[in-house]
Amino acid sequence: MTYCVAMRLADGLVFASDTRTNAGFDQISTFRKMHTFQQPGERLLTIMTAGNLATSQSVISLLEKRIHSDQPNLMSVVSLFEAAELLGETMREVVRRDNSTAGEASQVDFTCSMILGGQVRGEVPKLYHIYQEGNFIEATPETPYFQIGESKYGKPVLDRVLSFETTLDRAYQCALISFDSTMKSNLSVGMPMDVMLYRNDGFEPAYKVRLEADDSYYTELRRQWNKGIRDLVASMPLPDIGAH
Amino acid sequence: MTYCVAMRLADGLVFASDTRTNAGFDQISTFRKMHTFQQPGERLLTIMTAGNLATSQSVISLLEKRIHSDQPNLMSVVSLFEAAELLGETMREVVRRDNSTAGEASQVDFTCSMILGGQVRGEVPKLYHIYQEGNFIEATPETPYFQIGESKYGKPVLDRVLSFETTLDRAYQCALISFDSTMKSNLSVGMPMDVMLYRNDGFEPAYKVRLEADDSYYTELRRQWNKGIRDLVASMPLPDIGAH
Repeated sequence: MTYCVAMRLADGLVFASDTRTNAGFDQISTFRKMHTFQQPGERLLTIMTAGNLATSQSVISLLEKRIHSDQPNLMSVVSLFEAAELLGETMREVVRRDNSTAGEASQVDFTCSMILGGQVRGEVPKLYHIYQEGNFIEATPETPYFQIGESKYGKPVLDRVLSFETTLDRAYQCALISFDSTMKSNLSVGMPMDVMLYRNDGFEPAYKVRLEADDSYYTELRRQWNKGIRDLVASMPLPDIGAH
Repeated sequence: MTYCVAMRLADGLVFASDTRTNAGFDQISTFRKMHTFQQPGERLLTIMTAGNLATSQSVISLLEKRIHSDQPNLMSVVSLFEAAELLGETMREVVRRDNSTAGEASQVDFTCSMILGGQVRGEVPKLYHIYQEGNFIEATPETPYFQIGESKYGKPVLDRVLSFETTLDRAYQCALISFDSTMKSNLSVGMPMDVMLYRNDGFEPAYKVRLEADDSYYTELRRQWNKGIRDLVASMPLPDIGAH
């Protein structure tokens, strides 16, 4: 399983992804799910992936390979929208190839889904959610974040706190809380985490870190959040359920 | 969709269920998903259902009908374990019947899952989760609650706060918070809610209510929780992401 969240905010973009992949419960590995393509001063594109790992890796490899070709590629597209189209097409190409090789009898799900965010000079930063069918939607100020993978456990806190005006450091903090709730409930989402912050018109990461499980800020945040939730519940009025 | 949660605690049992059923987004109805079978002073059994509504209703109707027959039934079984077996068997019977009538071409999922809790005189209270296959597991002090239906959004708060020693009024409060998180994220879980508390050796409900959306306690709890979460996030340390 996987959990990735990305936000498009007034100040820029936030990306966070876990690194755990598993086939069953005993074949667990660590793989990077966040990939950044960069042309200093000109463009920065970050892709996060969930779903079939072979498909995700093939898509990323093809995208990398084609940068040095005459085909449309992530360095030649003139907008994030075109980059999203390219991702969708490349994904369909890989899934089609693997489905036809595997044959109809195969029960394997070759699909994956992706988040694409970044900025191409001349545009504002944009964020897209690319579905497993290859079509996609764009984040707006009313819906400033996307999740892929195991998204439900970590959604309530984002819905209550996050808005388009949230600052990048606060949004990063919220992402960590959202990850903590997810990892507490789903063993197949696991540390370390990759985090990247992008500030408008920076065309390079404003902050980038691989967060290990023993990171002191993350550890302290988890401790305060857990205590805070318990204290909050304890402070709230109890229902009147009559005589005991 | 559905959300039901039940808890087996040191003092007794807590049951809560929503009442929304839907086929698509425009065919929405209200149905009771909590059913109580009672023999004053002798036994109390409460069943909550999720999944195919036709199956759930058939199972409940058959269980009711057979109470007045010579067949093993909810009033004749000598333990909650036997009652759970009976539920599992009745569920399999209905699914088998509907599957064979519908034929192989049917795409309909006839399965449902259930929670059964209560007490038969001579035993301590017990709580079972009956899977769609008809097999089941029992709640223990280490795992004092079960959920069926749309369970993920409302799980983190239960995992952080609930323990076997939690009092019934506090557990009821936690259930409401868990429902609020779920209903905020999934439109197909909706008010009103049915809630029932059972105190050990009571053999009748200790508290029972149909909670409407405008219930004053629930409204105040939601308001305080929403504000509390936002205040908690705001009070926590921000990460150092370097120069702005």
